[in-house]
Amino acid sequence: AQVAAPKVDLSGYTRVRQELVAPPFAPKHEQVATGGPKIVEIRMETTEVLLTVDEDTGASIWALTYNGSVPGPLIIVHQDDYVELTLSNPAASQMEHNIDFHASSGALGGGGLTHVYPGEETVLRFKATRPGVFTYHCAPGGAMIPYHVTHGMNGTLMVLPRDGLKDADGNPLRYDTIAYIGEQDFYLPMDENGDYKTYEVAGEDFADSVEAMRTLTPTHSVFNGSVGALTGENAFKAKVGDTVLMVHNQANRDSRPHLIGGHGDHVWENGKFANPPQKDQETWFIRGGSAGAAMYTFLQPGVYAYVNHNLIEAALLGATAHFVVDGAWDNALMEQVTPPHVVET
Amino acid sequence: AQVAAPKVDLSGYTRVRQELVAPPFAPKHEQVATGGPKIVEIRMETTEVLLTVDEDTGASIWALTYNGSVPGPLIIVHQDDYVELTLSNPAASQMEHNIDFHASSGALGGGGLTHVYPGEETVLRFKATRPGVFTYHCAPGGAMIPYHVTHGMNGTLMVLPRDGLKDADGNPLRYDTIAYIGEQDFYLPMDENGDYKTYEVAGEDFADSVEAMRTLTPTHSVFNGSVGALTGENAFKAKVGDTVLMVHNQANRDSRPHLIGGHGDHVWENGKFANPPQKDQETWFIRGGSAGAAMYTFLQPGVYAYVNHNLIEAALLGATAHFVVDGAWDNALMEQVTPPHVVET
Amino acid sequence: AQVAAPKVDLSGYTRVRQELVAPPFAPKHEQVATGGPKIVEIRMETTEVLLTVDEDTGASIWALTYNGSVPGPLIIVHQDDYVELTLSNPAASQMEHNIDFHASSGALGGGGLTHVYPGEETVLRFKATRPGVFTYHCAPGGAMIPYHVTHGMNGTLMVLPRDGLKDADGNPLRYDTIAYIGEQDFYLPMDENGDYKTYEVAGEDFADSVEAMRTLTPTHSVFNGSVGALTGENAFKAKVGDTVLMVHNQANRDSRPHLIGGHGDHVWENGKFANPPQKDQETWFIRGGSAGAAMYTFLQPGVYAYVNHNLIEAALLGATAHFVVDGAWDNALMEQVTPPHVVET
Ligand SMILES: [Cu+2]
Ligand SMILES: [Cu+2]
Ligand SMILES: [Cu+2]
Ligand SMILES: [Cu+2]
Ligand SMILES: [Cu+2]
Ligand SMILES: [Cu+2]
Ligand SMILES: [Mg+2]
Ligand SMILES: [Mg+2]
Ligand SMILES: [Mg+2]
Ligand SMILES: [Mg+2]
Ligand SMILES: [Mg+2]
Ligand SMILES: [Mg+2]
Ligand SMILES: [Mg+2]
Ligand SMILES: [Mg+2]
Ligand SMILES: [Mg+2]
Repeated sequence: AQVAAPKVDLSGYTRVRQELVAPPFAPKHEQVATGGPKIVEIRMETTEVLLTVDEDTGASIWALTYNGSVPGPLIIVHQDDYVELTLSNPAASQMEHNIDFHASSGALGGGGLTHVYPGEETVLRFKATRPGVFTYHCAPGGAMIPYHVTHGMNGTLMVLPRDGLKDADGNPLRYDTIAYIGEQDFYLPMDENGDYKTYEVAGEDFADSVEAMRTLTPTHSVFNGSVGALTGENAFKAKVGDTVLMVHNQANRDSRPHLIGGHGDHVWENGKFANPPQKDQETWFIRGGSAGAAMYTFLQPGVYAYVNHNLIEAALLGATAHFVVDGAWDNALMEQVTPPHVVET
Repeated sequence: AQVAAPKVDLSGYTRVRQELVAPPFAPKHEQVATGGPKIVEIRMETTEVLLTVDEDTGASIWALTYNGSVPGPLIIVHQDDYVELTLSNPAASQMEHNIDFHASSGALGGGGLTHVYPGEETVLRFKATRPGVFTYHCAPGGAMIPYHVTHGMNGTLMVLPRDGLKDADGNPLRYDTIAYIGEQDFYLPMDENGDYKTYEVAGEDFADSVEAMRTLTPTHSVFNGSVGALTGENAFKAKVGDTVLMVHNQANRDSRPHLIGGHGDHVWENGKFANPPQKDQETWFIRGGSAGAAMYTFLQPGVYAYVNHNLIEAALLGATAHFVVDGAWDNALMEQVTPPHVVET
Repeated sequence: AQVAAPKVDLSGYTRVRQELVAPPFAPKHEQVATGGPKIVEIRMETTEVLLTVDEDTGASIWALTYNGSVPGPLIIVHQDDYVELTLSNPAASQMEHNIDFHASSGALGGGGLTHVYPGEETVLRFKATRPGVFTYHCAPGGAMIPYHVTHGMNGTLMVLPRDGLKDADGNPLRYDTIAYIGEQDFYLPMDENGDYKTYEVAGEDFADSVEAMRTLTPTHSVFNGSVGALTGENAFKAKVGDTVLMVHNQANRDSRPHLIGGHGDHVWENGKFANPPQKDQETWFIRGGSAGAAMYTFLQPGVYAYVNHNLIEAALLGATAHFVVDGAWDNALMEQVTPPHVVET
């Protein structure tokens, strides 16, 4: 059917190129669209990289990626723009890859039209008709689907309303910065001594991984590819009064983000901007196979931890990021009236 | 208290009989009710059947069922109708059964009034006062509750608003067809070699099943009773422009349905029609112990996979169904601009 | 920054003392606030107690608690009130504790300002600016966070709107009673025979507990600290026509409450009262790291079971409570038309 489908005339559309950047950063973009719908050209490479998941234990994985990062880059367009992706599989790859955009319609989200073997590339174009944050991921078929997705091959496409985000009452919402966080569940095979196994090349861990995945219990659940990728030197920086849009990608397993010391002022828990956001959230739930978004304006200085609030997953499996916020403390919101001290008895 | 309760006069109600059909099909019904509330008579038998869960491995279970299918049949009434069920336990059964309708009020959802031993039957009538899709299931008491429910003994009652479904703005929504999907988590006992155990009669696996259930990790999570029950020859058929109402029953464990290549145009994630549906969903969450509903109009031809988007559960545990959709491809929505080809280097 | 922060003048505020009571009960409170915002003084002690989790098996834990109960006491204030907590760690304690209030803003929810060692106390004051039910919990840092939280050290603060609760259309909602339920996931270490291990003092189980937590599979998931804590003699009592507000605390792991034989008439699934409640719910989802609230008016007499509707967790892991409701049966809602009887064949 597709071969015979009438060509569509897009000659009236402006073409723009979006330079993708590595997470947790967002590409240059407008919050409110200028002019009419455009064709937004992007390029991604399906690179296979050896990734250290936890430096303390040496746990590693041959990650399958878009552009070398876990998660893949954040793509941002406006509703009714076209996304035109060139997807290229380097000749050095071991494996076939493709891409399924949850934001798109038909052909398994584009997965059916984009299978590229090592050394191949393809171009897919689709219209972003629904506003929201949406997962994209590799889906080569069968057991290879969870295998690629749990090896890091997923990311987020954000489709903004042309006139920008709005609160539940229809008032405009603007952010100062985006924090783009992908939580990745890894199922790393262990040997008989409980040590993580290592492999020579991507794909070599397939049989072991299938066995590990069947437990449905990840060995790691990390933000942006590894334990500590968003803490210490890599913590997010902000100042009191800044509004951050936290975009959370969750390609396979559920999560429940919470910002310790903060809130979700406006939360699109299932990530679709045609619906009113929820207010005042303490913890929001991201369904496995979706992206969600939460907006917060910092009220106090200090360190905030953004965690999967299954605290076992936050503290033992790796799902912790930090925001370090500068500014003046407000005793009207919180005050340490009496510091800890020994009580005479 | 009940013995002395005043009899209720239902002499003004019309009686109609609803012939239940096997899933994934829906019984004959109106989307908008004609006339006033009725008494809808149905009949279900609690049959125990040996079911092959996965042909590839020979995994099987003595399923406990309503009318022989997993899930039990879809029942459809309108708000304020009465459901009048005759529940019959065949003399050949091994076990006691009953039924708890989440849509009903009191007596443990009817569970307290419907315990039938092999060879018995009973009649229960209740008013469907709340619109939505609701789980029903067997609940004989104690550990027998999860045992019966995870042996397939559950299904959905849909209570339509008398004037039909509506979108978030109050506009009427109509569907062309219903796809009724029950996701079943099975906890199949294995022997010391990792082979699935087999049993002579229903109930014989009780002690082993209790042990397997305690892991909280299913060996299978399948749609409509077995791997492949809704794929291949059994795939749903539709055409571009058709609107499908996907009714998803989840009696015990959570799920997160996603339609690969499609969306939820209107989603009642927790399944209750007095609340506005959510728009544009990529993935929706069905709480264990509930049913949900999602409506989609197909925009492109081809194969769509309906999955639990924990992709391990979809690909390795069985939670995959297919829709095969006929019609004309629309390049304005998606186009393969350049097919995969080798890049000269 | 905090040292230099300007002092805030609260001289115009009335001070009131709230006497906390043990769960499942609520402290004395108004549903609609009288007068302006107040400073509500409370006191909690971080006591470590040996708790029998299941009498049948003798499973026990050195619980880490606020005021000796699991969950900690329910605190109730109104929006814009200040909470002023004195937190005291008895000299007899083994461990350091602190408190993170999800309702508060800054300093890790107060966690950064309240670390008390055995024999110490501290006073923290914060403004409750957002209405809803919110989790509080201990968070000493690192692996100690999930360790303390899964040893029972968590509870709920309810911040009522000053003018009380409202339905989705803005109409007032009032309750006759509160049922305060904390579901606790315990990960009890077992010895090589599968028997639960016992320990001499709090904290001695740390290494074993970390190993058990990594499975992400609790051995118990109980309401109010132990199997049967809210059944039998301890069941909730009510009568037909009573409206109950069920406050459900879930500090670490997700749950899906369901009231067998009843519903959620009005449900704030993620617990924040600035958002319209959902109607007619059969089952609602409480995200790990949050509290939720559901309101129901009993329509029939009898026993209702409030369960985590993963029925394995309800029946085998302990997550079951009972409501016993007095009053007259209503055959217009449900009738046992024909009791179970043997069918002649
Ligand atoms: Cu791939
Ligand atoms: Cu997907
Ligand atoms: Cu049964
Ligand atoms: Cu139930
Ligand atoms: Cu503590
Ligand atoms: Cu917390
Ligand atoms: Mg480490
Ligand atoms: Mg292929
Ligand atoms: Mg700002
Ligand atoms: Mg198979
Ligand atoms: Mg019985
Ligand atoms: Mg149509
Ligand atoms: Mg027991
Ligand atoms: Mg400390
Ligand atoms: Mg009342």
